[in-house]
Amino acid sequence: MSLLLRRGLKTKSLFPTPSVRSLLTSEAASEQNVLLRGWIRSVRKQKSVCFAVLNDGTTLKGIQAILSEQDADKLSTGACVELQGSLTPSPGKEQSKEFQVQSLRVLGECDSSYPLQKKRHTHEFLRTINHLRARGNVGGAVLRVRHAASEGLQRFFAGQEFIQVHTPILTSNDCEGAGEVFRVTPASAPSDFFKKPVFLTVSGQLHAEMIASAMSRVYTFGPVFRAEESLTSRHLAEFWMLEAEMTFIDKLDQLLDVTEASVQHTTRHVLSRCADDLALFNQWTDTTLLDRLHKSIDQSFVRMTYTEAIDVLQKAKKKFEFPTTWGSSLQSEHERYLASEYCGRPVFVTDYPTHLKPFYMRANDDGGKTVSCFDLLIPGVGELVGGSMREERYDVLKEKMEAATMNLEDYQWYLDLRKYGSAPHGGYGIGFERLLLWLTGLENVREVVPVPRWFGHCNY
Amino acid sequence: MSLLLRRGLKTKSLFPTPSVRSLLTSEAASEQNVLLRGWIRSVRKQKSVCFAVLNDGTTLKGIQAILSEQDADKLSTGACVELQGSLTPSPGKEQSKEFQVQSLRVLGECDSSYPLQKKRHTHEFLRTINHLRARGNVGGAVLRVRHAASEGLQRFFAGQEFIQVHTPILTSNDCEGAGEVFRVTPASAPSDFFKKPVFLTVSGQLHAEMIASAMSRVYTFGPVFRAEESLTSRHLAEFWMLEAEMTFIDKLDQLLDVTEASVQHTTRHVLSRCADDLALFNQWTDTTLLDRLHKSIDQSFVRMTYTEAIDVLQKAKKKFEFPTTWGSSLQSEHERYLASEYCGRPVFVTDYPTHLKPFYMRANDDGGKTVSCFDLLIPGVGELVGGSMREERYDVLKEKMEAATMNLEDYQWYLDLRKYGSAPHGGYGIGFERLLLWLTGLENVREVVPVPRWFGHCNY
Repeated sequence: MSLLLRRGLKTKSLFPTPSVRSLLTSEAASEQNVLLRGWIRSVRKQKSVCFAVLNDGTTLKGIQAILSEQDADKLSTGACVELQGSLTPSPGKEQSKEFQVQSLRVLGECDSSYPLQKKRHTHEFLRTINHLRARGNVGGAVLRVRHAASEGLQRFFAGQEFIQVHTPILTSNDCEGAGEVFRVTPASAPSDFFKKPVFLTVSGQLHAEMIASAMSRVYTFGPVFRAEESLTSRHLAEFWMLEAEMTFIDKLDQLLDVTEASVQHTTRHVLSRCADDLALFNQWTDTTLLDRLHKSIDQSFVRMTYTEAIDVLQKAKKKFEFPTTWGSSLQSEHERYLASEYCGRPVFVTDYPTHLKPFYMRANDDGGKTVSCFDLLIPGVGELVGGSMREERYDVLKEKMEAATMNLEDYQWYLDLRKYGSAPHGGYGIGFERLLLWLTGLENVREVVPVPRWFGHCNY
Repeated sequence: MSLLLRRGLKTKSLFPTPSVRSLLTSEAASEQNVLLRGWIRSVRKQKSVCFAVLNDGTTLKGIQAILSEQDADKLSTGACVELQGSLTPSPGKEQSKEFQVQSLRVLGECDSSYPLQKKRHTHEFLRTINHLRARGNVGGAVLRVRHAASEGLQRFFAGQEFIQVHTPILTSNDCEGAGEVFRVTPASAPSDFFKKPVFLTVSGQLHAEMIASAMSRVYTFGPVFRAEESLTSRHLAEFWMLEAEMTFIDKLDQLLDVTEASVQHTTRHVLSRCADDLALFNQWTDTTLLDRLHKSIDQSFVRMTYTEAIDVLQKAKKKFEFPTTWGSSLQSEHERYLASEYCGRPVFVTDYPTHLKPFYMRANDDGGKTVSCFDLLIPGVGELVGGSMREERYDVLKEKMEAATMNLEDYQWYLDLRKYGSAPHGGYGIGFERLLLWLTGLENVREVVPVPRWFGHCNY
């Protein structure tokens, strides 16, 4: 047990064999009589000695094992094995430690039909063997980055005194007042289980506001759903959102400060925890990745109003397909230009025209022209975060809800929050898969979800 | 900024006003010129001085503010206010610090119809005003304990080198091979969106196994769904499960060690983070709570086989309604007797008869009589955790799946995990709301979810 403590773990490991990661990061340069378990990634036979790479998913590269030809003959790529031997400093340049095998036991053979035999496979092929995808370099790296990114976000919010709340998936509301949603009914009988139509949530925001009106700062982190019949690289039927709501801020700039800090903190966390994984993506997926990420944490994000953005677009030498007149939506081509070309780093666009945004955003003091909101645009990804100050004035909110022809009875609870000790507040939502595209340089959201669901696809 | 750092936060606060918690836990006994925001919980006027309790949800008790009669007249219970003044040591016994108000600004009035005027309200009444429930003592305490319990679990698993994965909510499988599930269809048109029937998950286990077969140790923590038409105090249509899967363990006892450590670690975390909240529950909800929790972390949990448990039940002086012959299910009355009366603390019951358990549990070496599994029974709650070693032998698993008349084609991916480098592994699932019943002494799961959904109820 003390051995495992020395290996750099903060707590005593409860497991009988050490992870590859804990072995490789242990301070001990050599160690006798170690039992190690994992899967064989490759076997290489030379005249006098054989090499095998053993990986257990805790690191990108795995550990190099040195073994006899007799032992190597028992191994095939994909097999699960237990090695007994010693950890020693490695003379090779590729690794600082290696594993001298004294004995070997195959725990699970790998059938010769194993589809992961080649050194590299396309994303498209890997998606067809989703249940084995995490055994590849990219699949494993994505999951480690995904874990580190959620951990980074959670630590950021804990450090800022937010509590995590679990807002419901099943809802009779429809936050955006529109959109393609999924309906939920009992499978056995189309009974009236909830006595009203119930849907899968598209956002936990209204519920997060409910709880923030008692607990000050909360965030919810979970799946949301859209029934869009879309096959683009940016659409999933099920994806994760982090939504934060904070009471007692008065200005949009305070909200931007928190947003910027949360993205930068998470980026820093992933850079420090997943250096090898990011190096892999930087080598194979996007050679500007590391440069881009480092730049994004060294500098503040740009801040400009929608009105300024329109001005920039109108003065741009580029020709756009869609109009750039004040009042029109910013399209992908505009967002791309602003983030990738004009700013070259993340940019907040704030204070959009009222008619482009939902009812709950706070009206600016300009006669109803704009609302106090922002989109965070990221080079290569587009909109990563959307947020706003929320309308906390009962009468103003009620008027906007009526104008949007909402059923006020259904939302009386939401209005009540403004009737009983209303407080200035705001919040934002981060599309977690888009954050992962930003952190990995991958282009398709299907690559960053372990078991993706999209139009026409719900396998495994 | 340095002020906020001194207040015991590890990171610089990004917020313009400090939380009540950070003020009360700050090392500074007094502080000048502080701006504070929150909601008024109560106002008390005395001859020469007035008191108000201000709470922002970060603590149970809030902070006592001393103010003039003139200022007090502006206040009503539930109003949202900003106080400017100084923090001073308190002469009272109830608190160590209090807040001397120099000026007061009402941010949001509270309408006189505010339903939380009384000192205490019943759970039933509070459930009818769910959107304001967290403003009460119990509602707020539940959310702080819920946050601390998820944080405790997540820290435990991070410390044991698990990564968090997000298994899908939408699934075409049905993990338990049975049960009342919800069907999902697009709301706009009953189109064939996924080209097959799709349901809300009842468990992420099979998907967690998929990922554990590449990453070694994983856990998933998210909502699961049951369409049970039940109105008991233990049933919700949507609830949270933590499911952990770990590769490279060989024995059930190793799995029990991890389970026990995760529950004890989380209990310890909540005891240290939410002392005031637990004291509240111990005073009003369950006077044995603290004693019970401390006992559960000081001692190991009891371990007995199903066969031993049957023996205990048969020898018991108590009369049971349901049979206690070998092979029959343990009913609530049996579980209650074992945990609350016979053991008086949490007890693992292991190695149940094969026919009582699902196909994926690993067969023991006794001719198919029992499987290598456990239920963790907790005094007052019943089953808190269920887990097992998973059948990792291809042929044995396939035979069991055939016997259960499962469609092997749909589950070929699950069989594949045993074909390509199969590894011994096991896992377990913690019912998160049941854990919260255990940690709070509350009796109804509807009290421990911020926005609960159950048969006939999907409000807000």
